[in-house]
Amino acid sequence: MLQISKRGQLMPSSPIRKLVPYAEAAIKNGTKVYHLNIGQPDIETPQPMLDAVRNSSFKVLEYSHSAGNESYRRKLAAYYYQAGIQIDYRQIIITTGASEAILFSFLACLDSGDEVITPEPFYANYYSFALAAGLQVVPITASIENGFALPPIEEFEKKITARTKAIVICNPNNPTGYLYKAEEMEALKQIVIKHNLYLFCDEAYREFCYEGEHISAMHLEGLEQHVILIDSISKRYSACGARVGALVSKNPAVLDAVMKFAQTRLSPPSFAQIAAEAAIDLPSDYFNATKAEYKRRRDTIVQRLNAMEGVFCPNPGGAFYAMAKLPVDDADAFCLWLLKSFSHKGATVMLAPATGFYGTAGLGKQEVRLAYVLNEQDINIAMDCLEAALKVYPGKTN
Amino acid sequence: MLQISKRGQLMPSSPIRKLVPYAEAAIKNGTKVYHLNIGQPDIETPQPMLDAVRNSSFKVLEYSHSAGNESYRRKLAAYYYQAGIQIDYRQIIITTGASEAILFSFLACLDSGDEVITPEPFYANYYSFALAAGLQVVPITASIENGFALPPIEEFEKKITARTKAIVICNPNNPTGYLYKAEEMEALKQIVIKHNLYLFCDEAYREFCYEGEHISAMHLEGLEQHVILIDSISKRYSACGARVGALVSKNPAVLDAVMKFAQTRLSPPSFAQIAAEAAIDLPSDYFNATKAEYKRRRDTIVQRLNAMEGVFCPNPGGAFYAMAKLPVDDADAFCLWLLKSFSHKGATVMLAPATGFYGTAGLGKQEVRLAYVLNEQDINIAMDCLEAALKVYPGKTN
Repeated sequence: MLQISKRGQLMPSSPIRKLVPYAEAAIKNGTKVYHLNIGQPDIETPQPMLDAVRNSSFKVLEYSHSAGNESYRRKLAAYYYQAGIQIDYRQIIITTGASEAILFSFLACLDSGDEVITPEPFYANYYSFALAAGLQVVPITASIENGFALPPIEEFEKKITARTKAIVICNPNNPTGYLYKAEEMEALKQIVIKHNLYLFCDEAYREFCYEGEHISAMHLEGLEQHVILIDSISKRYSACGARVGALVSKNPAVLDAVMKFAQTRLSPPSFAQIAAEAAIDLPSDYFNATKAEYKRRRDTIVQRLNAMEGVFCPNPGGAFYAMAKLPVDDADAFCLWLLKSFSHKGATVMLAPATGFYGTAGLGKQEVRLAYVLNEQDINIAMDCLEAALKVYPGKTN
Repeated sequence: MLQISKRGQLMPSSPIRKLVPYAEAAIKNGTKVYHLNIGQPDIETPQPMLDAVRNSSFKVLEYSHSAGNESYRRKLAAYYYQAGIQIDYRQIIITTGASEAILFSFLACLDSGDEVITPEPFYANYYSFALAAGLQVVPITASIENGFALPPIEEFEKKITARTKAIVICNPNNPTGYLYKAEEMEALKQIVIKHNLYLFCDEAYREFCYEGEHISAMHLEGLEQHVILIDSISKRYSACGARVGALVSKNPAVLDAVMKFAQTRLSPPSFAQIAAEAAIDLPSDYFNATKAEYKRRRDTIVQRLNAMEGVFCPNPGGAFYAMAKLPVDDADAFCLWLLKSFSHKGATVMLAPATGFYGTAGLGKQEVRLAYVLNEQDINIAMDCLEAALKVYPGKTN
């Protein structure tokens, strides 16, 4: 009997996608399912991005440069400059989504057995990519009661060993929506320098900050050799299917090593790079409109959630996610029940149970993540469903 | 001082791309460079594939299913059926190029420290992906004198250890162009069964066979649980920049494990899947025309090479590569010299030194790979350059 690899066995199924068959069954049975479970925005991809691809006139769909098209990298450097990040285009490697930037960072900087510290709850795929690269993820718990603020730096100190090589953060955060404050970024800087660590910073949601300014890891002086910025156009421009991300670093050895992995997979997708390059030329007010829309949605969903009996939802400062603590015995069972056994006026809501975002077993059992990727009207209907469900759910705790 | 990972240090630079700066300098100096070094065809991408993308009308560039669009997978299953491969669309996982299919195969089936056997010379990126996955590549030498036929099965037996978990082949082969015969595939089958191995078979060049029929690993009865087919649209349809490949297996445990890695990177590129799906609807004579074109080029390049004094080029049965043994002391130095110090009527030729395709140090020092991805006229000019160069190269050996 042929064996699957140990890492293949250990690799978790996507915590979001494992409920999909139940959602499909509900839809088949005529129930309208409101999807708050996945970060796939309903906002239209900007027309100039799609037009750039549709109006292209090349005859051969060629490989691009392994680091991405130079024309796109030059424009992207200008985008970063506007965000207060001064880099040369040669310090950018275009990747196939932020996913590949995460994997390449891990492979190029860390060896099998090395440890990466990350606040939990965390983006579940950090764990999966770490597993693929043979790394240990060491979680430090952020609590919903504190709104998922960065845990005290002493908690980091406690977890640091001789194998600790990096800290991974997502800012603003997926799944919590938390936006790190200047003093938190400063605390991270101190520990990164003290222990000579890499700081991998996923800033895919940079443009969506509702409470205060975004502090990029790239803004931190003295961390030039430590910071690897992981980025993506997926959420920024509602272009998840493009599969265009970026890895940015001022550390030449890191860039050289990552380039070797990039060459191995030949090039990032060519069509999508055309769309990505067009995005840089969008009018400067593009993000204002999108951000205002997400902020309205956030205000709605947070207000609706906190108005429900026994529900607590801290106000997220960025991204388009909210985490809520529900008065239920087991959020995994509740999310399944919502799809299998519940409907309200012919509809139900699909949520992401939070357990998949925690590295520590047993945490997050009463929490769910809600992605506010639907319009306000749909969010309100989804909240009506949730409110009705919480009144009748057999496993409710209040 | 922060350290790069050991695997990042060990990862080789692309053997093809390391000459690129010299080619760029030659072009800057006004020399016309004929590129026979890389498998980027000049043949136009079929217009219906580009039109399908350009005429698309969706508003949101969404994630696709992690296994790829069902509509595309269903059509691809029909394509395989026509190639004598009977599979269900659910046995296909669409990947971001064959590159990702190779990486996912390695990660899902093999653990760090496991060994994979592959005939050398081999596609250099097998080594790089193996390194990324912590595997040992064990090469078995095929010789240019035998036209790169599969080495005797006893050579495989000698290399098998308790850690041997898989054999990797590319058929028709990159870099040699060798097309495996029915009896060679049968010999591989016997050893795969005897030692309970996986057989990873890269069939990216399946449609380009000039001498005899292509025998897919999927045609081998009794290997249903062993075979993982790795595929790509890059070469088949001159669509290298699409980054669309596939992993096909009848082993449900392999499919389950690969799907978990596929979910981690969310989805393959959406634009390119539209082009890939349109490719399946191309008229049935599409490959006839393309194959005839490549065959003419092969005949030209092989005839020209063998007519040069001291040069030997076995006739490749498939793909669009030829390997040639040259009367030079060091093919790496010669390829560099062609770009740095030589021109003939204002032109030179860029070749891939073969050393990068061998796992055994010291092999291939007199060999180069030529990709016949230029039209016949250009191939003839490139051969004029090579012929003239071999007459004056200071390191010639005849």
